[in-house]
Amino acid sequence: MLKTDLPLNPAVLASLRLWHQMIATRDLSRLAEITAPDAVFRSPTVLRGFESAPALALALQTVLTVFEDFSYHREFAGDDGHSVVLEFSARVGDKSLKGIDMIRFDADGRIVDFEVMIRPLNALQLLYAAMTEKLGPALVAFKGKG
Amino acid sequence: MLKTDLPLNPAVLASLRLWHQMIATRDLSRLAEITAPDAVFRSPTVLRGFESAPALALALQTVLTVFEDFSYHREFAGDDGHSVVLEFSARVGDKSLKGIDMIRFDADGRIVDFEVMIRPLNALQLLYAAMTEKLGPALVAFKGKG
Repeated sequence: MLKTDLPLNPAVLASLRLWHQMIATRDLSRLAEITAPDAVFRSPTVLRGFESAPALALALQTVLTVFEDFSYHREFAGDDGHSVVLEFSARVGDKSLKGIDMIRFDADGRIVDFEVMIRPLNALQLLYAAMTEKLGPALVAFKGKG
Repeated sequence: MLKTDLPLNPAVLASLRLWHQMIATRDLSRLAEITAPDAVFRSPTVLRGFESAPALALALQTVLTVFEDFSYHREFAGDDGHSVVLEFSARVGDKSLKGIDMIRFDADGRIVDFEVMIRPLNALQLLYAAMTEKLGPALVAFKGKG
């Protein structure tokens, strides 16, 4: 799945390989290895980001239990060699969706910013309801960022 | 604004330069020059795409009148040299938003697929209401695609 010919920093490429491996096995237990302590998660539903690494882990672990038929498609690299956009498709309940993960890594290949966008509107509304039901106030309790 | 050191096909780079120039001047009158006749527009609110070039032009012209304080930020290139992701921020009414344009070009640098994603949910809902008010049934009348 990973396009290793994207012009990315080697540490970022290594983290992306582990990321794809974790998603393929639906096991995020090694996520902390590639996450900076002060990483920020930016949800598709709320403007403010959630800080820090535990917020990101909670959000990603939860969304993995909500998405069905998840698969990655195209990959895009920023010209800094430290940022990527990963295109995906999935399903929530009976709604199909498209989305992107826009991820920025530090020089050591650790995730510092993880932003998610989803279309269309009806799937995003359903995702919001499903995430709220699973998370309750757990994610909202994390410190806001920007 | 355009990161000309992105690894892109020269015809794609030329189209991106014209695109940024049009956005900067809020004048899309030359859009047809860089659009393939069968281009597809994929809205942040509806799953199906809208075909063809006139649908894309109508959607983009209308959204330009709805977004305030629009500005582009990072740019990402796909490894085919023909696809980009452009990150932006804007405002709809009193809601701030982030978004991306995910654009695929043909070998002649013409847009063949233009997909938009927006976060967060409240801004997307407001955008949907504003676009529906301005467009009425005009966009929905275009042929669906995928």
